[in-house]
This record gives sequence, structure tokens and C-alpha cells, in this order.
Amino acid sequence: MLVVMKPHATPADVAAVEAKIRSLGLVPHSISGAQRVAIGITGNKGALDPALFEGMPGVRDAIRVSQPFKLVSREVKAEDTVIDVGGVSIGGARIAVVAGPCSVESREQLLEAARAVKQAGATFLRGGAYKPRTSPYEFQGLAEEGLKLLALAREETGLKVVTEAMDAETLPLVAEYADVVQIGARNMQNFSLLKRLGTIGKPVLLKRGPSATVREWLMAAEYVVSHGNARVALCERGIRTFETATRNTLDLNAVPLLKSLTHLPVVVDPSHGVGLRAFVPAMARAGIAAGADGLIVEVHPCPERALSDGQQSLTPAEFASLMEQVRVIAGAVGRPF
Amino acid sequence: MLVVMKPHATPADVAAVEAKIRSLGLVPHSISGAQRVAIGITGNKGALDPALFEGMPGVRDAIRVSQPFKLVSREVKAEDTVIDVGGVSIGGARIAVVAGPCSVESREQLLEAARAVKQAGATFLRGGAYKPRTSPYEFQGLAEEGLKLLALAREETGLKVVTEAMDAETLPLVAEYADVVQIGARNMQNFSLLKRLGTIGKPVLLKRGPSATVREWLMAAEYVVSHGNARVALCERGIRTFETATRNTLDLNAVPLLKSLTHLPVVVDPSHGVGLRAFVPAMARAGIAAGADGLIVEVHPCPERALSDGQQSLTPAEFASLMEQVRVIAGAVGRPF
Amino acid sequence: MLVVMKPHATPADVAAVEAKIRSLGLVPHSISGAQRVAIGITGNKGALDPALFEGMPGVRDAIRVSQPFKLVSREVKAEDTVIDVGGVSIGGARIAVVAGPCSVESREQLLEAARAVKQAGATFLRGGAYKPRTSPYEFQGLAEEGLKLLALAREETGLKVVTEAMDAETLPLVAEYADVVQIGARNMQNFSLLKRLGTIGKPVLLKRGPSATVREWLMAAEYVVSHGNARVALCERGIRTFETATRNTLDLNAVPLLKSLTHLPVVVDPSHGVGLRAFVPAMARAGIAAGADGLIVEVHPCPERALSDGQQSLTPAEFASLMEQVRVIAGAVGRPF
Amino acid sequence: MLVVMKPHATPADVAAVEAKIRSLGLVPHSISGAQRVAIGITGNKGALDPALFEGMPGVRDAIRVSQPFKLVSREVKAEDTVIDVGGVSIGGARIAVVAGPCSVESREQLLEAARAVKQAGATFLRGGAYKPRTSPYEFQGLAEEGLKLLALAREETGLKVVTEAMDAETLPLVAEYADVVQIGARNMQNFSLLKRLGTIGKPVLLKRGPSATVREWLMAAEYVVSHGNARVALCERGIRTFETATRNTLDLNAVPLLKSLTHLPVVVDPSHGVGLRAFVPAMARAGIAAGADGLIVEVHPCPERALSDGQQSLTPAEFASLMEQVRVIAGAVGRPF
Repeated sequence: MLVVMKPHATPADVAAVEAKIRSLGLVPHSISGAQRVAIGITGNKGALDPALFEGMPGVRDAIRVSQPFKLVSREVKAEDTVIDVGGVSIGGARIAVVAGPCSVESREQLLEAARAVKQAGATFLRGGAYKPRTSPYEFQGLAEEGLKLLALAREETGLKVVTEAMDAETLPLVAEYADVVQIGARNMQNFSLLKRLGTIGKPVLLKRGPSATVREWLMAAEYVVSHGNARVALCERGIRTFETATRNTLDLNAVPLLKSLTHLPVVVDPSHGVGLRAFVPAMARAGIAAGADGLIVEVHPCPERALSDGQQSLTPAEFASLMEQVRVIAGAVGRPF
Repeated sequence: MLVVMKPHATPADVAAVEAKIRSLGLVPHSISGAQRVAIGITGNKGALDPALFEGMPGVRDAIRVSQPFKLVSREVKAEDTVIDVGGVSIGGARIAVVAGPCSVESREQLLEAARAVKQAGATFLRGGAYKPRTSPYEFQGLAEEGLKLLALAREETGLKVVTEAMDAETLPLVAEYADVVQIGARNMQNFSLLKRLGTIGKPVLLKRGPSATVREWLMAAEYVVSHGNARVALCERGIRTFETATRNTLDLNAVPLLKSLTHLPVVVDPSHGVGLRAFVPAMARAGIAAGADGLIVEVHPCPERALSDGQQSLTPAEFASLMEQVRVIAGAVGRPF
Repeated sequence: MLVVMKPHATPADVAAVEAKIRSLGLVPHSISGAQRVAIGITGNKGALDPALFEGMPGVRDAIRVSQPFKLVSREVKAEDTVIDVGGVSIGGARIAVVAGPCSVESREQLLEAARAVKQAGATFLRGGAYKPRTSPYEFQGLAEEGLKLLALAREETGLKVVTEAMDAETLPLVAEYADVVQIGARNMQNFSLLKRLGTIGKPVLLKRGPSATVREWLMAAEYVVSHGNARVALCERGIRTFETATRNTLDLNAVPLLKSLTHLPVVVDPSHGVGLRAFVPAMARAGIAAGADGLIVEVHPCPERALSDGQQSLTPAEFASLMEQVRVIAGAVGRPF
Repeated sequence: MLVVMKPHATPADVAAVEAKIRSLGLVPHSISGAQRVAIGITGNKGALDPALFEGMPGVRDAIRVSQPFKLVSREVKAEDTVIDVGGVSIGGARIAVVAGPCSVESREQLLEAARAVKQAGATFLRGGAYKPRTSPYEFQGLAEEGLKLLALAREETGLKVVTEAMDAETLPLVAEYADVVQIGARNMQNFSLLKRLGTIGKPVLLKRGPSATVREWLMAAEYVVSHGNARVALCERGIRTFETATRNTLDLNAVPLLKSLTHLPVVVDPSHGVGLRAFVPAMARAGIAAGADGLIVEVHPCPERALSDGQQSLTPAEFASLMEQVRVIAGAVGRPF
């Protein structure tokens, strides 16, 4: 059960509800959001009676939650979450498009990519300054130098910056430069990092772990939201299966499933999802047709020279063509673009 | 390598090519199609020189094939295969829609479903008379009685009939009633059955096995085609992964991958692919957006009373709505409907 | 629920129980075994009261079965099934070892393999005469010629013959020559074939499908047993996962799980389970340590010349060494060998 | 290629080799170990000639490495790594047994568990003070309080302490108390943490990620070793597959595969690997029979009251019985115990 307090509830109101919960032998979990406090209850075996709390001072609502995730659940908040990022949004009717190189490699590479994706209609620029790589001998990213280049590209193009934080140590720095902090698939259950994300003032793009179920993924989002940051978008980027002809298996089933279970926005990454350039446009179209709120696409001025993910990066011309196709599909599902 | 003979090549021409192949220490595999013979060559370590065969009498072409599948490969036949089924087609520009109940249960149930899907725009009726069931204690289908009801529904509605054959024993009977013979996921590598399918005069809808790679699936299709039946359509119906929130994981990556590897038509089954009624329309839209040539959808007049697959069957009204959505997406990807 | 009739129950007794079941709005499934009839009941929402049937003439027992599989369940039969094969057994204290080539290739190859595995202590000879192959262009087996060679090897060595049946058409022929009929992984849910296996007088070695859950596998065994053949052994041969360094992932968890769920014997196939010769002995040891009742191992006089599975076949010397190791592990878990 | 310097090589020797590598257009990766420097080379398309480096001052060896992992490879170091932990070892002939509760819950619980596992023959005590939990609402561990209790248990019993570090922030604290620092499955590719582990003076027990291939896992170990800490043991704890009857699928294939690819010790975790108490002993036996160097087993004085993993924890009596069985299997594979 989740006890949702009114916006003007006092600390004493909250304390009284917590005391009531403890008196029942249960555990209260107070979750302070920007505008109100909610108190999750755990430890109960069966359903609780909302009437236990509904009459108490400061209580707006007591909601039965059938899922283990609570704050991210549609049961708790029926309307879609729209994340405003300085005037552009993720979630809501309009499709958000994030595009850019896998890694920030140089000023020229990044600016060329940024201008191209801007011109084709993207509103967010992606690019990794800190790169999780399978091998310690591979390019690990430009670090702060890369963040500075992203800021430069933002300044020139007006694109909002989405970039990955790999750990708590560099998170403050990343959050300073980024408009949206991306959390990579391998960190989806890095719980220490998730808790920290609750405390930053920036939205989070949380990628699905390669073998995470949708419910585990929502629990990871619940970590961020329950620690104070409600601005989380979920990014489906393919799961690991037995099929080796594609890099991952893009699980588009997850899109309508998520839209039914959670109010958070859902973004699709066709680049990692299929892993082969030629098939990225088809999977981008499919993602939007399935109901996604946005796309994140790898674009490189010269994919064959990319330091990472070249085989799945689009050229600027291919990306412009993809945007045309996405525009048509967005229209077909009634989304402005 | 594949040596393709001219339509009028003589048995002696074929024998000469086979002898030449054997003289090189390799193995010829003659494949008699409706109009011509092709001779696959196996046993070679490296690439063969086409010139070895191109001058021989009756030889039209000697094609290097880099894939283990040959006759179904785009390398061997660049243009899309269009399967004509008595005036309607699978493959080609127009989207094919197959719809109907999981199992044929009764005359009333089937006719009601058939009329509804016909009215909404489907051109094929699905319905199982022989049902592969996990448990021996579950409903196993009406057998020939079910086939007769399908024929009746075809007569009344003009819909073409797609129905499953489970084994070689009943294949002749199924092929007599069916317009298209469906092979279920669990039989995708029933090689004895695949060989038999090469000898029937009816098109085959070959479902992907739940843990079959795309290449294994194409090899299964190669069995049918190499045994004489070139009219094969492939049906993606979801693969088995660790995710349990959906019945299967619909692998839409397979759609553009298949369209690049093979000339055979590709159909998507969103009903089994996601397994939950509410999400079927989203996945049908996504399938078409990804480039599929057709859909196969479970529709039941009264899903909650269905003897099988009720939870993933649409009502007639839901199916009519899905068809409207598919029509719009088909238009957006330039497919008449 | 399962109503187990006494051995001497009359057809009228059975009919009365069936009528009683129908009168409750439920469905009886009569299962005629060699010695008695059992009647499964399906269609009930909750548990039934055994007292409904226990007093009826000819009824020995009415058993609540919590699993969807019934006849193969430990709930229905607590003691281990021991399959006698002409004096040697599968199940029971002694470890059964089946060994031999993947395919029967020639008289010399088979006899050499048979003599070697006999000398090392195997009691069963394996060898495929009908081979399920991913590609139609690969060696498909010697068919009846192969069966005859197996019979010859049995005659010379006294080994019992285990060989695969791929379809209902050739099943009678295979069953005529084989001492145990093997069903391959891809046919585990070939329900038509499973039903036929219920009617043959030979034991069945049922391999697990590459993506079958343990419960689905037990349901497949239930098909065979419920159609009249109680002599079924289960063979774990690896499942398909994301790991590609090994051919399959041998799921030894399945061994103690099966031993708890079913009374049927469990055999492990380390050859297909790991797929690389060097690792077969380790996985054979592990299988026995986990509690398996037997092993099936590929042995070829000259693996590098094998027409199939050469990379996972042991030489006779390697097999002899493996047998020494298995003997020691069998002793350590208290199994004579 | 890996250029291994002699122990007394000078910085100038190292610099000369690096310069030579750069002059070939390649990238040197100097890796400073406790006793010597090794220089990995990346960027080459084909094999390099060892003679390029073998004559240079300070160079001991130039080794062709066919695998992407280098320092952990058997190619680079043929003999088994034995990790000495204050007089007891992981790796080497003797089987190492780590046992104890999933979480440290209280002084009584921990001491009772420690005494019991000590008495049964374990030499390491496990117990989590920082707990990665799927839900933010579940018990997260006692933190430093838990570490202090582990130190107390060590003092009383003499057992060495194995406990998990979840992040770089708490790593120094954990490393201060722990004898071996465990890295959980979900952190296997937390590259920031892996790099930090290279700098601590304690051995690392690196669990396999739930969807990590063996090669990715070895690359994760390579991160730790290449950053300066050669004392890494690998722990197989089950992978995620489609099978849901067991918590994970223990991949014992990985044991002989690892023993062939790497010189690092391999430990098996049957508790997480199967997830159900009744089956833990069978999988412990199988792990040792497959060639593992050690076991890590969850034991709780009262599993039904455990705050985490109760269903897979053994009672002290069950653990004592398991130890007896392991002793016999260890003997059977020639390992003292």
C-alpha cells in the first residue's frame, strides 16, 4: 500500500502515519518527492484496508498497489509522466529523438554529428564521454574533455545533451554537463548508483539490463524515484538471447507492456537493439509503431572510422532518411513530430 | 555453389554435371523444382570456380552461395517470392492478413469468427483442426471434422484456409482441405515432415521454432524447397527468452534480417508473439512497420470461452480496430492494403 | 486427480468411474497401462475429494496430483522406475552407460566402436541410422542399412542397441531393430510421434528439447506413458542459452529436480551437453555426481573422420579413461558400476 | 601480443618497448604487476613477430595471445594460480569451502552460523553486509555494523572472511575488514569498480554476471588483473535462461572450459546456481566432480527466518552432511580436503 500525503501535509502528519504503520507491525518507507511525500508500506502479508489511513490528517489517498514497484506504477499515477528538459520533452505526445555518436571522439567528429542530427530534426544529442567497454584495452572515452565537447555542441546547435554516467564518482561531473544522465545496460542494477541518481537534479535515461525482466527494470527505476528523482525515462535496447545474427534481440513487446504498467516514458534504441546499420531504420519504425515515446540512434559522420559501434552507426544521410520514415509512422499513430 | 540448369535441360545434361562434381571429389545434390533442376554442391573447402560448369550443356548459371541455405537465399534469387493462393497472395506489395480462432471448436464459433474477420478485411481464415498441446489431457482438436468446418467457412465467406498439419500421416488430408498448410513452431525441425511438404501442391506457412536461430529456420525452409515446393512463407511468432511477463519474445529484428537474407515472404504472428490480448494491436503495427508481408492474428467470437489461447485472442470488435490501425501503418510504409 | 483402478477392475468398473466423473461436469481420461487402468480427471477448478471415488468397485486409489503431469509424477508412484532391457537396466542402483558413434557410417566403423565401448564397460551401443540434420545437404544416415549394422554389432558384442526414430513411418522398423528407441531433442514435442511411442513394446529414451522446461519435458513423457508405454527414460542433453563457447548448456540442475519430480530414470548426455571432446569427461563425472542414472556418450574410432559430431566424439582410449573416472565417481555416490 | 618484462627491467626499458610499439602504429598498454611489468599490444590486424621485441633490453618474453584476455590466459601463464589468504588457499589441490549466511543479520545469527560451518570443515565464512536487492524496499544489509560482526566471527573461529563490496565508496571499508572481497553478479561489468579492485591489497572473488559469456567474464577479470591485482578467483553462480523451475541454471560446462582458458581458480556457488535447498548438495557434488577448486554455500541457523535467500540456505546439519559428500567426491577426483 502507498499512502499519498497532501502537498501541504506537515512533518507531524507524516510522522503520525509512520507511527500508525509501525503500530501494525509493518515498515513505512517515506519517499519525499518534489511536491509531496508518499509513504510506501512493506511487510504486510495480505491487503491492507485503505480506511486505516484515509481519515488521518494530511492524507490525500491510500492506494492498494498490486505490483512490487509502487511509485513508478500506473496504479499510483494514471497519467503519463512528461519529462521537461529545458523546453523539450521526453514523454507526452511528441516523439523525442536522441541522436549522435556512440563515443565523443573529437571536436570535429562531434560537431559534424551534432549539426547533422540537428538538421534532420533530432532535439537531443547523444555521445559517450565515459565508455563501458568489455575489454580494458579498448578506447575508454575522453572523460571530462568529452563532456566539454558536448557542452560546446549544445551551445552551437541548441540540442540537449544525453550522456552516460558510469559511477558515483563521476556522476556529479556528468550531471553538471548533461541535460539527461544516461545509465547503461550493465549498470541497470548498480544499486549504489541508482540511489545516487535519486539525488541529482537531472532526468535519467535508464537502459534495460541485457538479461533484466521488465519487472526488475521497473524496480531499478523505483530505486531512483524512491530516492527522490521522479524524472526517469526507460530505454529498451535489446536483450540477450540465443540468436547471434543480431547483436541483441530488441524486445518491442516491452513497449506496450511498459506503457500499461508504468507512467514513465519509454524510449527505444534500435542501434543496440539490432546492431547492424542496415536494419536500424526498420526497427526505429517498429519501435514508434509499437508505441514508444522516443528513439535514441547512433549516428557518426564516418561510421567505418568510429572508435566504437561503427557497424551499427548510421551516416548523416541514412539518419535523415530514417527521420523521414519515422515522421510518417509517427503521423500514422497520431503523434506529432 | 549451386548449378542452375536451364528449364529444358535433359537428364543427360544433369547427369554430366553430377559426374563432373563427383570427379572433383565433391557431392552433388540435385533438387528438382517445378520448372528446372538445380544442383547444390557440398564438400568443397574453399570457393569453386563457376567456369567449371558454366560452359556445360543445359547449364544456365553457376552461383557462388556464401550461406548454408541456397535455394531460399537472396543470392540465388534476388526478387521477392510472391505466393499466389487462388487469386490472393502472400508476399508482394499487398499485406496478407490471416485471422481466426486458435482451434476450430464448432460450426457456430468458426462461422461467426470467419464472417467477422472477412468483414474487417482479412483474406485468409486460420483455425486449427489438429492441435499440438503441451498436455495429453488438453483439447486436441476436432481433426477431420474441423477441416470440414473450415471448408464450409471458406465456401460461405470466400476466405482462403490456413490450417496446421502435425504429421505426415494427416498431411494428405490437411493438404486436401487447406489452401495453405501451416507448420507449427514445435515441428520446425521435424525433418521428415519438412521433406514431405516438398511433395504437396500447397503453399506452406513455416513457423519459427521457439529456440531456432534465423539461419536454422532458413535451413528448415531449404528442406521444403529443396524437396520440390518453392511456395514457403516464414512466420515469426516469438522466441523463448528469460522474460516471463509475455508468452514469448516477438523477435521483430528477424523481419528486416530475413528480408535481406531470403526472397521468401515473412509473416508476423503478434498473438503468440506477445500472448496477451491488450498488446496484440501494438505488435501487429510494429510488425508491419518493420517490413513484414503479412499478419496472422487469433480472433474468437468469445475469447473467455475459447478452448485454447483465449487470453491472446481478440474479439471481432478488437480485430476490426486492429485492422484500421494496420491499414494506416501499411499506408505509411507504402503497402496497399 | 488420478483414479487408479485395481488390476482386475472390469470395464464396467471403469465405465462407472468415468460416468461419475462426467456427472460432476468434469472430463475423464482413461489411461490403459500394461497391468491396470488409471483415469485422469481434468476440468476441475479446485481440489476434488478422494472420497468421491474411493468406495467405488474396482478403485484402488484416488490420488490428488498437484502437477500437470500425473502418471510420471512421484506423487503417483514413489519408487524409482527401473527399465529392464533384456537383462540390463536403466534406472536402479547400477549406472547405465550407452556409448558409440553419432551416426552409423560403415560396418567397420560401427564394429570397431562397439568392441571398444564394450571392452571399456558400456552395456548399450548408440548409433544413428536416421539422422536429423540442420541442413538437407548433410549426411542423413544409412537408414535400414544402418539398423542392420546395429543388429550385427549387437550380435557380436552383446550390447543392447539404442537408436533414434525420427518419425512414425519408420518407427516400426526402428522399434524392430532397437532395444531402446531414442527420441531426439527436436522431436521432444512431436506429439504425434509421442502418441505412437505409447504403442510400441520397446523402452524410450526421450531427450530434452533445446528450449523445453523440465515441466514441458515431463508432459512429453506423460504423452508416452498415458498412451500405454511406461518404460521411458529422460535424457538431459543441454539447453540453448546465450553462451556460445559450448555447443549447449548442460543443465545438471535438472538432474536432482527430475529425481524429485518423477520416478523415471534420468540419463545425461555430456557429448551434446558441452559439445567439445576435451570437456566431455568432466561433464560425465559431474552428471553422475549430480545423481544421474546413466550416461550416453559419443565415441568414434576416428573422430576427425566422423560424418557428424566429430568434434565432440571421444576416441576409444579417451572413452576408456572416462569410464575409469566414472567408476570412481559412481563409487563415491554409492552406485555400483 | 604481450611483451613481458623481466623483474628488474628499468623504466627506460619499458619506455623503449612502448616507443617501438608506437612506431609500428600500434597501442601499448603497460600493466604494472607486483613483480614485473607486462605490455599488451592492441591495434594490430594480424599476428606480430615476437622477434620484434625479444632482443630488446629488459624483455623476458614476447607472447602471442590468441584470446582478447591476456593476463588471465593460460597462454600467458600455464601453471594454476593459487591465492594464499593468510595460510589457507583458493586454487591448488585442496578444495576451498566458503560457507555462511546470505546476509549478516545479527551477532547471534552470524556466530551460530560461523561456528557450525567451521565445525563442518569450512575455512572461509561468507556473509553480506551490503546487499544488492532487486527492490529498494527490501533489507539492504547492516553495512559497517555487519563488517564488524564478520571480524568478530573471524576472531572467534579463525575462519577467513569473504564479503561483498557493492561500490567504490564502500570498497576501502570492505577491503579493510574482508580477507577476500566478493563482487556480485550484477557488478561483474561495473568497470569503474573493477578498476578499483586492481588497487586493493585483497583477493577478489568475481561472480559471473547472469547473462555474461565466459569470455566476457574473463575480460572482467582481465580488468582487475591489468589494473594491478592478480589475485582473482572466478565464481560460477548460475546463468539466466528460460528455465524457471530453478532460480538460475548452474553452468558447470564453464568449469572445465575455464580451467582450459585461464590459470585463475574456479569456485562454484550451488546455492544461487539452483536456488532450492534440497538440490544444493547434488550441485555441490557435481561442481567438484567437474573440476572446481572450491565451493561457496549459503548456510543459516534457521533458514525459514532468514532475511534473504532462506529458500536456498542449508541448515547447519544439512551443511555438515553436504561436507561429508563433498569430501568423498573430492577424494574421487584426487583432491585432498
